[in-house]
Amino acid sequence: MDAIGTIEIAGIVADIAAEMGAAAERGTVASYIPPLAQVPPEKFGIAVVMADGAVHVAGDADEAFSIQSISKVFSLTLALGAVGDQLWQRVGREPSGSAFNSIVQLESEQGIPRNPFINAGAIVVCDVLLGRSAPAEAIAQMVRFVRTLAGDEAGSIGIDEAVASAEQDTGFRNMALANYMRAFGNIRAPVERVLGVYFHFCALAMSCRELAMAGRYLMNGGRVGGHSVITANRARRINALMMSCGHYDNSGDFAFRVGLPGKSGVGGGILCVAPGIASIAVWSPGLNASGNSQLGTLALERLVQRTGWSVFEPRVS
Amino acid sequence: MDAIGTIEIAGIVADIAAEMGAAAERGTVASYIPPLAQVPPEKFGIAVVMADGAVHVAGDADEAFSIQSISKVFSLTLALGAVGDQLWQRVGREPSGSAFNSIVQLESEQGIPRNPFINAGAIVVCDVLLGRSAPAEAIAQMVRFVRTLAGDEAGSIGIDEAVASAEQDTGFRNMALANYMRAFGNIRAPVERVLGVYFHFCALAMSCRELAMAGRYLMNGGRVGGHSVITANRARRINALMMSCGHYDNSGDFAFRVGLPGKSGVGGGILCVAPGIASIAVWSPGLNASGNSQLGTLALERLVQRTGWSVFEPRVS
Amino acid sequence: MDAIGTIEIAGIVADIAAEMGAAAERGTVASYIPPLAQVPPEKFGIAVVMADGAVHVAGDADEAFSIQSISKVFSLTLALGAVGDQLWQRVGREPSGSAFNSIVQLESEQGIPRNPFINAGAIVVCDVLLGRSAPAEAIAQMVRFVRTLAGDEAGSIGIDEAVASAEQDTGFRNMALANYMRAFGNIRAPVERVLGVYFHFCALAMSCRELAMAGRYLMNGGRVGGHSVITANRARRINALMMSCGHYDNSGDFAFRVGLPGKSGVGGGILCVAPGIASIAVWSPGLNASGNSQLGTLALERLVQRTGWSVFEPRVS
Amino acid sequence: MDAIGTIEIAGIVADIAAEMGAAAERGTVASYIPPLAQVPPEKFGIAVVMADGAVHVAGDADEAFSIQSISKVFSLTLALGAVGDQLWQRVGREPSGSAFNSIVQLESEQGIPRNPFINAGAIVVCDVLLGRSAPAEAIAQMVRFVRTLAGDEAGSIGIDEAVASAEQDTGFRNMALANYMRAFGNIRAPVERVLGVYFHFCALAMSCRELAMAGRYLMNGGRVGGHSVITANRARRINALMMSCGHYDNSGDFAFRVGLPGKSGVGGGILCVAPGIASIAVWSPGLNASGNSQLGTLALERLVQRTGWSVFEPRVS
Repeated sequence: MDAIGTIEIAGIVADIAAEMGAAAERGTVASYIPPLAQVPPEKFGIAVVMADGAVHVAGDADEAFSIQSISKVFSLTLALGAVGDQLWQRVGREPSGSAFNSIVQLESEQGIPRNPFINAGAIVVCDVLLGRSAPAEAIAQMVRFVRTLAGDEAGSIGIDEAVASAEQDTGFRNMALANYMRAFGNIRAPVERVLGVYFHFCALAMSCRELAMAGRYLMNGGRVGGHSVITANRARRINALMMSCGHYDNSGDFAFRVGLPGKSGVGGGILCVAPGIASIAVWSPGLNASGNSQLGTLALERLVQRTGWSVFEPRVS
Repeated sequence: MDAIGTIEIAGIVADIAAEMGAAAERGTVASYIPPLAQVPPEKFGIAVVMADGAVHVAGDADEAFSIQSISKVFSLTLALGAVGDQLWQRVGREPSGSAFNSIVQLESEQGIPRNPFINAGAIVVCDVLLGRSAPAEAIAQMVRFVRTLAGDEAGSIGIDEAVASAEQDTGFRNMALANYMRAFGNIRAPVERVLGVYFHFCALAMSCRELAMAGRYLMNGGRVGGHSVITANRARRINALMMSCGHYDNSGDFAFRVGLPGKSGVGGGILCVAPGIASIAVWSPGLNASGNSQLGTLALERLVQRTGWSVFEPRVS
Repeated sequence: MDAIGTIEIAGIVADIAAEMGAAAERGTVASYIPPLAQVPPEKFGIAVVMADGAVHVAGDADEAFSIQSISKVFSLTLALGAVGDQLWQRVGREPSGSAFNSIVQLESEQGIPRNPFINAGAIVVCDVLLGRSAPAEAIAQMVRFVRTLAGDEAGSIGIDEAVASAEQDTGFRNMALANYMRAFGNIRAPVERVLGVYFHFCALAMSCRELAMAGRYLMNGGRVGGHSVITANRARRINALMMSCGHYDNSGDFAFRVGLPGKSGVGGGILCVAPGIASIAVWSPGLNASGNSQLGTLALERLVQRTGWSVFEPRVS
Repeated sequence: MDAIGTIEIAGIVADIAAEMGAAAERGTVASYIPPLAQVPPEKFGIAVVMADGAVHVAGDADEAFSIQSISKVFSLTLALGAVGDQLWQRVGREPSGSAFNSIVQLESEQGIPRNPFINAGAIVVCDVLLGRSAPAEAIAQMVRFVRTLAGDEAGSIGIDEAVASAEQDTGFRNMALANYMRAFGNIRAPVERVLGVYFHFCALAMSCRELAMAGRYLMNGGRVGGHSVITANRARRINALMMSCGHYDNSGDFAFRVGLPGKSGVGGGILCVAPGIASIAVWSPGLNASGNSQLGTLALERLVQRTGWSVFEPRVS
């Protein structure tokens, strides 16, 4: 067990929420679709679920937000369960080295996206999950899966349909990416259906508490409450991908500053994993220049400084 | 303390050396300079230095080899000591997303290399270390530093001058990189002198045992034997950079398969760090398609599978 | 008047057709849609319309073929007539320096295609021509325009609907390009409608004789039979664009070898203009490595060698 | 003979010089080396040498300036004379589609520069001309050649040594290009010697009158005064290359606006050829955003508008 006790964590979480609540520099809220643009920049939430089950929350930790690209972690997990390591024939595992919706790399690499956390890669993952079934079915399966991960028996986690529709109206770049990969044969279902699934996944809405709960399997070698979600090996590898590729073209800097596997979304959320120790979710809608939550990133940096949870530090034992 | 005891590690190390000694697929020895091309592909060495000081070696662990790009870890450490975080104004911290000697990225990013582990970045680090002093002085400082890190009182670690000369004769790409960055003002000393330093750093020769010893400060929060080499914060961050950028454009895959911060060289060596647990060096001269030691990578994968040392796994405690 | 008389031209045209008929190396017929793949590689046609109205034909000069990208010359002419030099705010005038369907350049240049003869540029031209009208109307206008240019009173020039449908079924790259430009606001009508127009333009079918007739206005300073199609200034500039950008990423080589403004299509046709002298059409379905008609290019090289019509040579007078 | 008589040309040339002398927008004088930065922006010269030998000059037509990249036309001519079409195995013939000193393209195309008019291509041409001889010899040969072309018996054309030295001091990008191509084996002599030749060629100084005289062979099918400089075929092809690639990444626009083969230099000079009609030189040191002489380009546009000399227009006969 970690040397930093339960009581200290509660205090650290409260301190961080207080500091972030008062921060002047809050970044810029994503404005490409109206439902995201309307979220007040004052919001900040944090939830830490410990390996022993203790939960610490502060700020707006129980308010639902659009998890956006964080959903790519859950869809990747589902796809690995469905088709296993075959997936890696259609998606790479390397950081992209450029902007998250870049189409350039697809041209030189024959329609194989660099990794499952850039848009192109997540669209391929959706194509894999969709297969020959109906979009509604794939979407329902995803919602059920995330609810199960989060222990959300009440079914409060769901799709924000306003967000899903808005994405669909303006998603020309994603349409371009999908058509481009289809030209290389790496999208197989009709493009509109694949994107329908993709936009719905991005529109998943939940709170920090629910998100941190949903991430427990990644801290626990693939298991939640005695039940195996995926193998320990795959959980470890998803963590590795989150470290290498989880923060767009700022992933190296996130590793440098925070040192935990994490995945961010343009809704301002970040899911982070300290293997064996904690599953952490933060949310603040203002983004930094790289498209990651400004205060979310700062909050995680503070948390790691005070707990020593970075995977790159010797553990206190 | 880790649950896997000293005796087990010794056995695991021996098993791995035996397996690697018998492997048929050994990769391709680097051939761009004669002194490297002549190294027999049969070589395999491994050394594991535990946090408690125990050392386990097997195979050709005491034979010196050319550490090549692994030296970039030590030169970065020296440069951070010399100029601190100012260094990051001249070098980035993101994976490059392309081949290790790529000049393309420098064009679009105004002469700022992506990270200190690609050639261009390491050349900037050499320029920083050189400053206004003589190349011989900068080289001597580096040799002293690495000997101190390794506890090499006998002074057996040194520069292989045959390698250094051969690099200089054929290093047109590095000459191109250096001149190109000079055009942007990011190299300040005369190009030939900076490259002289760079080629000598790459020509450092030492054994797996010495290399693993030299890496102890990265496992120990920057300290060796009660003495602080760098701050814990910087040690943590160097580990993060090794994870993100330590294996050229295969870094994502190395994180995925091995899950430890590491740095490879075309001489076939890899230095790996399990924070708080072990400093590990492997060496086998045959390279895989990405330019990393084929058997070295495989050996580390085996080691992690049997010990659970990946930073992405919950630690046994 | 040119020193090479009418009789000599007839002989030269016949000689060329004989040589091309016998050629062994005929290139590779485009196979990305079935209707093109079925065209026999033995076909070769040539038609030369002189400034004085004389017409010389040989080979399969009266057989209709799919003009494909050659239609981009006519749609550009129509669009310049419709919106004038405003067009250049949405399309550039420089050679692309890379493959004809490259999406890379669009990313770095904010959705502005390099020139109106690459696919992306021609799609913008279609968007301009479509405006708010119905696709069927824009297509009918184009057919009328080309018939008028060619003096095709019988209405034999038309759309090959089998080709148009086949393009639509597999045009994922063009769909990607159009969506991508729409993301930058450089496509304004619904993407499917713009592409419907584009694919129909590409599916225009006519013979060498008709194509050479249709090109007369470019040889004659914008005029045909006393009637002005466009201003002399614009005719001159369209010729310049054909010289710089008419042969995909082989345009420099075509200028080097042939030295006439020209535009090729993957159907194997090429329209060429010797200003003040002749309008020339050649057709042979086998393509060279750059996607231009292998024998068509060779035939034009021969024609220029024997007539001295290259714009880069001093004219005999 | 062209319908625009000698008297009219004289008047047109005088008009243009008057207009350019009064122009307010004169562009920006190149400042990367002091000797160029000191040239007064007021300068403007024009010289037109007709096919019949008549010479029309106006403005500062007899003042020497640094021809810079225009020398690439003469060095190409020499190299074709020396090694013939073998040259094209080491240099391409396509426009570069990007900035004139781009190193990116060299990476993807294995050290083969796109054309002989970008820096990398001209450096290869220098390597060809240098061969195993001494740099001084290659430079002397070039000076003799250009004097002969220009009929400069007095030997007033020469190298501006101040310019040559200044280039050498700051030519890090060219040093990078040369080393990079050497890494691919496409530079064979020692890099410093090749660049010594290159920088001296760029430092050739002559007047508009001399430059227009030197360009006569390109208007005359390779001949000057009954003497053959190169074959008609090669003269034609050099003209084609000037059209496709003569104005950096603005070549398409120059063809569109002027419609004559031409080559510009950062000293503000442009050599233009109207095949069979005239050899034209203009000079004004202020450059536009693309690095071509602002008033030089405008002067040529005016000249073509008033004479109809564009190769894309039907000739008046």
